[in-house]
Amino acid sequence: MTTLPTLLVLDADPPPRLGRLTGRARIVHTDAAHLAERLPQADVLLVWDFASHAVREAWPGQGPRPAWVHTASAGVDHLMGPELAASDTVVTNARGIFDQPIAEYVAALVLAVAKDLPRTLEHQRERTWRHREGRRVAGTRACVVGSGPIGRAIVRTLKALGVTTALVGRVPRTGVHGPADLDRLISRADWVIAAAPLTEETYRMFDGRRFGVMQPSAFFVNVGRGQLVDEDALAHALTRRWITGAALDVFTSEPLPEDSPLWGLPGLIVSPHMSGDTVGWRDELAAQFVELYERWAAGRSLVNVVDKKRGYVPGH
Amino acid sequence: MTTLPTLLVLDADPPPRLGRLTGRARIVHTDAAHLAERLPQADVLLVWDFASHAVREAWPGQGPRPAWVHTASAGVDHLMGPELAASDTVVTNARGIFDQPIAEYVAALVLAVAKDLPRTLEHQRERTWRHREGRRVAGTRACVVGSGPIGRAIVRTLKALGVTTALVGRVPRTGVHGPADLDRLISRADWVIAAAPLTEETYRMFDGRRFGVMQPSAFFVNVGRGQLVDEDALAHALTRRWITGAALDVFTSEPLPEDSPLWGLPGLIVSPHMSGDTVGWRDELAAQFVELYERWAAGRSLVNVVDKKRGYVPGH
Repeated sequence: MTTLPTLLVLDADPPPRLGRLTGRARIVHTDAAHLAERLPQADVLLVWDFASHAVREAWPGQGPRPAWVHTASAGVDHLMGPELAASDTVVTNARGIFDQPIAEYVAALVLAVAKDLPRTLEHQRERTWRHREGRRVAGTRACVVGSGPIGRAIVRTLKALGVTTALVGRVPRTGVHGPADLDRLISRADWVIAAAPLTEETYRMFDGRRFGVMQPSAFFVNVGRGQLVDEDALAHALTRRWITGAALDVFTSEPLPEDSPLWGLPGLIVSPHMSGDTVGWRDELAAQFVELYERWAAGRSLVNVVDKKRGYVPGH
Repeated sequence: MTTLPTLLVLDADPPPRLGRLTGRARIVHTDAAHLAERLPQADVLLVWDFASHAVREAWPGQGPRPAWVHTASAGVDHLMGPELAASDTVVTNARGIFDQPIAEYVAALVLAVAKDLPRTLEHQRERTWRHREGRRVAGTRACVVGSGPIGRAIVRTLKALGVTTALVGRVPRTGVHGPADLDRLISRADWVIAAAPLTEETYRMFDGRRFGVMQPSAFFVNVGRGQLVDEDALAHALTRRWITGAALDVFTSEPLPEDSPLWGLPGLIVSPHMSGDTVGWRDELAAQFVELYERWAAGRSLVNVVDKKRGYVPGH
């Protein structure tokens, strides 16, 4: 009898359903506190608790490291430290699972804001009938920052609604603008959508200067990572009405502390990091990992392999 | 010098901008109270105050009637009485102006509900971080009732979002189901959208039986006319959770009285008859009338001519 590979699962509640792996892996569950201690026995690490920073903290540590780490998230910023990046360990992510849900979420925000739905709900609470004019979404302009599959899905969905879109990525290519075009594009956009991975280059790229460049009628959406945004600068921009409003689904500190001023900022919609999470998403994430595990166990090459220096899966 | 035709405008605030007609019509403004008295002098009546029922009440009345009545609305139920319907007067409407705005409005509701946005806004007010799972809109099913240009625009927009759609009209034809299919279609729809004109056949077509046929997960939207719905039956259905929620933009009585129980019903979104009204809509309505007036003055045939017996402009 051959030895089964050890699959270490950095758990979250609920744990992943890995039924198909029964008898094909020795599955060991761990919480963040015991991760470092159990890591030397692991052939594979599944980071299911994608809110944890335990992986970054456990690396390099004592003893051997797993050959492969998979994270059940699109972003890898929470686990990628310099030691893991420099190591031989292969890192894969949940590329693909969140694309369409996040695109729909962004479309929901764009349409709801254009039709003034938040204010309609306020008026309803006050039993106030107050007719207002909405905006047409078709014919407006969006600038989507982040040219990975999520950004591209957002572009597809907004285009389907008649929005004129521009996509900005790290490297200019067909259909994708480079960073040099960013200021010009956001200066004439009705909707500026942040959907980039968190890297050194994107850290706080939306700062006071960039909010200053946007139109007073612009609406900003962040579905990427909280640290893409200088939150103080956004608060300043909203308070001064540099832009008309914003929606943040991600924050520098999550959950957003109860005393954060962001909860009550004029024109800001706060949501609890849910843009990509639709009914059944956990099962999809588990199924995606099982498929990757089967490739790995069969000696086939993995997909969704993260470029650890760049911090994301390089695109097409 | 030839006599200018008299254009009587049943006004609303703000009045239409008819600049191009200066010197080409004798424009007389009237409020509802003086309509009957001024009608005999009018060659053309523009019903700009589309919330008024004064036209229905002024017909037939004393003396000659205008040869042409135009209403700056898609629906004609507010002006069409039996005498006007039986007369030689031609009635035209604002067909086309509201199609895309209403389609976007419906998409906004569908997406916002799927992503649980109303609850997110509630939680934000309470500074509560509560992760939830949204629903994917792509792959859901919608039944759109009303096969005119508004219903067809709704279908196009929902299809662009990946929704499987069925369109129901008065007469079955290619791409349009007849009334016989309605119960079957709404019984499996995630979204039931009412966008029909108000006629004898559609009066309270959404009654207790129909809400009972829908799925418990169904969401109902009315952007047509209030009287398409038996509002008491809807209230009952929502209270008993026969369906998950609804959004009404139109009501039997508008503005919705402050003491209406509809304001506070669980799962009901109340909006003030604004689904078709986007920035610039009044100018579009005025420009559309000016164009029709120019056709009429030149002796060319009018478009957007309402079938007065049916109560809408017959479709393609």
